[in-house]
Amino acid sequence: MVQVNENYLKLKAGYLFPEIAKRVSIYSENNPLNQNLIKLGIGDVTEPLPNSCIEAMNNALLEMGTNAGFKGYGPEQGYIWLREKISKNDFNNRGCEISPEEIFVSDGSKCDSSNILDILGDDNSIAVTDPVYPVYVDSNVMAGRTGNSLQEGGYQGLIYLPISEANNFKPEIPSQKVDIIYLCFPNNPTGATLTKFELKKWVDYAIHNQSLIFYDAAYEAFIRDNDIPHSIYEIEGARNCAIEFRSFSKNAGFTGVRCAYTVIPKSLQGTTSCGEKINLWNLWNRRQSTKFNGVNYIVQRGAEAVYSNKGKNEVKQLIDFYMNNAAIMRNKLEQAGFKIFGGQNAPYVWIKVPDQMSSWDFFDYLLEKANVVGTPGSGFGLAGEGYFRLSAFNSLSNVQNAMDRISNI
Amino acid sequence: MVQVNENYLKLKAGYLFPEIAKRVSIYSENNPLNQNLIKLGIGDVTEPLPNSCIEAMNNALLEMGTNAGFKGYGPEQGYIWLREKISKNDFNNRGCEISPEEIFVSDGSKCDSSNILDILGDDNSIAVTDPVYPVYVDSNVMAGRTGNSLQEGGYQGLIYLPISEANNFKPEIPSQKVDIIYLCFPNNPTGATLTKFELKKWVDYAIHNQSLIFYDAAYEAFIRDNDIPHSIYEIEGARNCAIEFRSFSKNAGFTGVRCAYTVIPKSLQGTTSCGEKINLWNLWNRRQSTKFNGVNYIVQRGAEAVYSNKGKNEVKQLIDFYMNNAAIMRNKLEQAGFKIFGGQNAPYVWIKVPDQMSSWDFFDYLLEKANVVGTPGSGFGLAGEGYFRLSAFNSLSNVQNAMDRISNI
Repeated sequence: MVQVNENYLKLKAGYLFPEIAKRVSIYSENNPLNQNLIKLGIGDVTEPLPNSCIEAMNNALLEMGTNAGFKGYGPEQGYIWLREKISKNDFNNRGCEISPEEIFVSDGSKCDSSNILDILGDDNSIAVTDPVYPVYVDSNVMAGRTGNSLQEGGYQGLIYLPISEANNFKPEIPSQKVDIIYLCFPNNPTGATLTKFELKKWVDYAIHNQSLIFYDAAYEAFIRDNDIPHSIYEIEGARNCAIEFRSFSKNAGFTGVRCAYTVIPKSLQGTTSCGEKINLWNLWNRRQSTKFNGVNYIVQRGAEAVYSNKGKNEVKQLIDFYMNNAAIMRNKLEQAGFKIFGGQNAPYVWIKVPDQMSSWDFFDYLLEKANVVGTPGSGFGLAGEGYFRLSAFNSLSNVQNAMDRISNI
Repeated sequence: MVQVNENYLKLKAGYLFPEIAKRVSIYSENNPLNQNLIKLGIGDVTEPLPNSCIEAMNNALLEMGTNAGFKGYGPEQGYIWLREKISKNDFNNRGCEISPEEIFVSDGSKCDSSNILDILGDDNSIAVTDPVYPVYVDSNVMAGRTGNSLQEGGYQGLIYLPISEANNFKPEIPSQKVDIIYLCFPNNPTGATLTKFELKKWVDYAIHNQSLIFYDAAYEAFIRDNDIPHSIYEIEGARNCAIEFRSFSKNAGFTGVRCAYTVIPKSLQGTTSCGEKINLWNLWNRRQSTKFNGVNYIVQRGAEAVYSNKGKNEVKQLIDFYMNNAAIMRNKLEQAGFKIFGGQNAPYVWIKVPDQMSSWDFFDYLLEKANVVGTPGSGFGLAGEGYFRLSAFNSLSNVQNAMDRISNI
């Protein structure tokens, strides 16, 4: 009989968001008359697509209905006109030397940040922050890069870098040598950021230890402060130690449209067990050519429109809208006596759970007393226990109502 | 330094389609005045999208620009309204018992047919036909499921099932026990088909040996004969031994739109090394939930339109159009004295290369003498040597011109 990948059996059953859905569903069944739940849990955008993207996609769609304009298979790496716009606007204009060929367009950062493991060996040591976006951990478990789950939480073999009030939510540089480090800034779930000076220490560490950094900058558009880098390539040396994941999901609201990209500098190298140096760009290019067939042409035209003047303005308005929500949340929650973090350069507010409650207790408390759904910090890892994430992705009135209700409990 | 996945280094450098592109590019450089190349190589559609799909996608696009209609993250498995239409039209209406929950919508069969290896163990024995769609082989090499490449072609550890004139392009049932078997019918590249009676033998073999069949039915829409099954689930017992890959690429022309689906019956099981039975549906559901974020909402509405009455008519016209091309190709090539196969229930005509030429010699010969680009059979595997694939995906006039030129060499 066909053998299964037994690493999947190491995965802990209760994935975070299904458990949230279950509790919400039970509450709704028990309270059928209550139609007032406000969901600030999952990090999904709520505002319509920018008009410039709609227009560009509409034009592309019309092309696809004509003989002259029809497009079949596109390049697996993405159309060069999109890669050029990304290179110029997201990198060159910030002083980062990233060429169009180093940009691989894809259908999502979730895919890329888990598929990237395909090109790397089994014996690399791997560090993640704690709390952390669960996909980094689970994709490593599924690929057999960890041991079993631990009773207290987490998995054997992974190196956890706690982020908490004690270190101002900035992970400390590991004392040992680590081959691969996942960093996500602005951070999901805590909303924390690293300054250029702080990120430079990580790049220096990676170069010194020949480590590879996976830098997830999906939330860079929410950055307001000037000394916070939007890309790791703003830091000297990062071309030799970092892969960056970027997305159109959170800036242009593409969560239901699906477009992202990954940057693999041609200068990045890995090694074989015999010490032969191997270019990572070549491996990823081969991976994408063999196992992926490119992103929808219409979607790529939509992503291109994000870089038009009109598109930039519309994206700025979207970001301002969500960051205004975040400011309201910070303000109201502080007034209500909560200790809070994040929400200043990120769409997430990270709440210190009061009165020694657990994260899940606070989840149930907010659900029942305020009819507000958030995300328990412990769902993101051990060190998230005692914290709670609220997302700024919702309408202004829902955010205002949710904050009023929490304030009035 | 980070270790790479050394299995990638086993891959033979010259992947088929880049080599074709290189030779075409050299020819064009040497013959700058010749603008008359007709490409019948890569299996990419050329006709515009069906109008019903354009209309549905246009409506969905407009929704995405409104607060009320905006859709963010969709279900990783696909929207239930699309899965229900697929279940009903592609399966229930043909007497196959496949439920909507057993259908996983994705962005392409290339992704699915390579990603499926994620959920399976390292020690399964694997059989592929020869010639074969290169992605099946290369994805196994990359995942470390093969040994090194062999000097004469192919890879150690894979079981090759030759398909050639000797067996009428129908692979013979293996004499040994094989855990996983890739079958693609109507076949890419040979255009061959299996009748229900012939496919039943494979299902019986798989059930007897507890094997798993990966059934790639991407070309089912081109089937004309009634005794050729469109789905492996038309065969009794297939729910217990087969995963099926299907696509909107070749029926509705979605190669540039990206939508496909994979069927994993809930009755399918694998085993751990200790003999514990594991449900494959659960593993794939976990894989997709963790490493994939669903297909574009607009695209799924376009795929749904394929199942409307208007959509069905338009798809039928597209298929008739390409199959008329195939008939012209068969007719003209036979008149010109070629021995040919396929092209009757598939969009590919498989030519026996004349005069003891090699496949690549014939490629160069057609390129230079007729300015027609095809695909050398040897590029699909050892047993493809001496054959040549021409695709029926082109305009009528291009197909007619190409056939006239080949006839007049």
